[in-house]
Amino acid sequence: MPRFALLIEYHGAPFAGWQRQNDQPSVQGAIEAALAKIEPGEHTIGAAGRTDAGVHATGQVAHCDLSRDWDPFRLSEALNYHLKPNPVAILKCARVDDDWHARFGALERRYLFRLLARRAPLTSEAGQMWRVNHPLDAAAMQAGADRLIGLHDFTTFRSSICQSKSPVKTLDSLQVVEIPRDVGTEYQFHIRARSFLHNQVRSFVGTLERVGSGRWTPDDVTAALKARDRAACGPVCPPQGLYLAHVTYPKDPFA
Amino acid sequence: MPRFALLIEYHGAPFAGWQRQNDQPSVQGAIEAALAKIEPGEHTIGAAGRTDAGVHATGQVAHCDLSRDWDPFRLSEALNYHLKPNPVAILKCARVDDDWHARFGALERRYLFRLLARRAPLTSEAGQMWRVNHPLDAAAMQAGADRLIGLHDFTTFRSSICQSKSPVKTLDSLQVVEIPRDVGTEYQFHIRARSFLHNQVRSFVGTLERVGSGRWTPDDVTAALKARDRAACGPVCPPQGLYLAHVTYPKDPFA
Repeated sequence: MPRFALLIEYHGAPFAGWQRQNDQPSVQGAIEAALAKIEPGEHTIGAAGRTDAGVHATGQVAHCDLSRDWDPFRLSEALNYHLKPNPVAILKCARVDDDWHARFGALERRYLFRLLARRAPLTSEAGQMWRVNHPLDAAAMQAGADRLIGLHDFTTFRSSICQSKSPVKTLDSLQVVEIPRDVGTEYQFHIRARSFLHNQVRSFVGTLERVGSGRWTPDDVTAALKARDRAACGPVCPPQGLYLAHVTYPKDPFA
Repeated sequence: MPRFALLIEYHGAPFAGWQRQNDQPSVQGAIEAALAKIEPGEHTIGAAGRTDAGVHATGQVAHCDLSRDWDPFRLSEALNYHLKPNPVAILKCARVDDDWHARFGALERRYLFRLLARRAPLTSEAGQMWRVNHPLDAAAMQAGADRLIGLHDFTTFRSSICQSKSPVKTLDSLQVVEIPRDVGTEYQFHIRARSFLHNQVRSFVGTLERVGSGRWTPDDVTAALKARDRAACGPVCPPQGLYLAHVTYPKDPFA
């Protein structure tokens, strides 16, 4: 059966997460249902990142096996038609080798977290960022972020239900970008690693927000990391600011 | 009675527009209802721009008269509390002179229109931009836009129900900015004038999209302008890409 890679964008709010669930809507379930509309039967797709409830994607990647050798453009059009009205869009499809794997073949995942510091509630951007009431110090957050770069045991920043075999991972990059607005300031966290632990990004951002607000110092981040203890982590921040932005493969299947 | 200026952000989708209506939700009505919660009685506020149904604002300005000499920060907090769950936020309040007027005192309005060219439907950004299926030529759209700059009779680009006394207006600036994405391209139209006719921005963008897609030339824009005939206009584009971004006064009341 021909295998296809799918480049996927979604709004996480209506879903219990990427992963198919028996009793709740999921992104995987929505795409598998659309696949069943174009080729009846059971479909099981695998994704590069199993995003949590409420987390968005602008560059999720999954693969699926189909009976017909679909033209990739027509496949994306057909899936988008059947995905309606779910806020899930197939941005691109590509024919890949039969053993190509969206998850195991990935070299790097990139996440974006959007945080807005201002008093007023969100309107158009509600559900797309985390808002905090107080101003933040971007340089302090970057100094805290720098303590996390490299190969570490990230037990502190790992959910208790994380299924990863090892808490030891390499964090390649964590850049804090400050975007001034007429009212308030947006902070974007650009985070890159080969793979992530469960809740790792939201644990990072929740911890760095503590540094940005002055309650923690960068040294406190180092101490939390070295503690290798979940209880040493700052609060896990809410999911609606998080986007799976990009997955990198040895050769870009969509190029 | 002390007069206050309000800097307002809103998501236009749930509203029949800025202006109060008897039988439909409006932004003006939502803010007047919040004012009645903090000072019981009738409130009538005036805004710089009477945005249409579905049009958003990031920098609308209005003024209101209150009995108490509110601290501006506390006033914004109280209004935001009572505006919930409407997608309307008071970004700032300021005490202004009793004869200060949000509409008649404005020197310039700035609008932003966001247009995304890609095949896939919108997900997180649904309701925040106009999506077209085909690629567009930004340079051609800018060349078309340049034909509209200056003092003109804009009858072609004016709704038949426009209440403005004269169709003669000066368009100060219309910049087309191209923002490439991994999939598709965003085009932002940044538009500045002292004042606008009803549907003028959406008539401009609908016309320029024709130029960007190659169906019209910049000369066709000039011909349409010179026709001074509503029938010569391109299609009026949908409202969900339009944002009232900024209103300029001789002295910034919120500085």
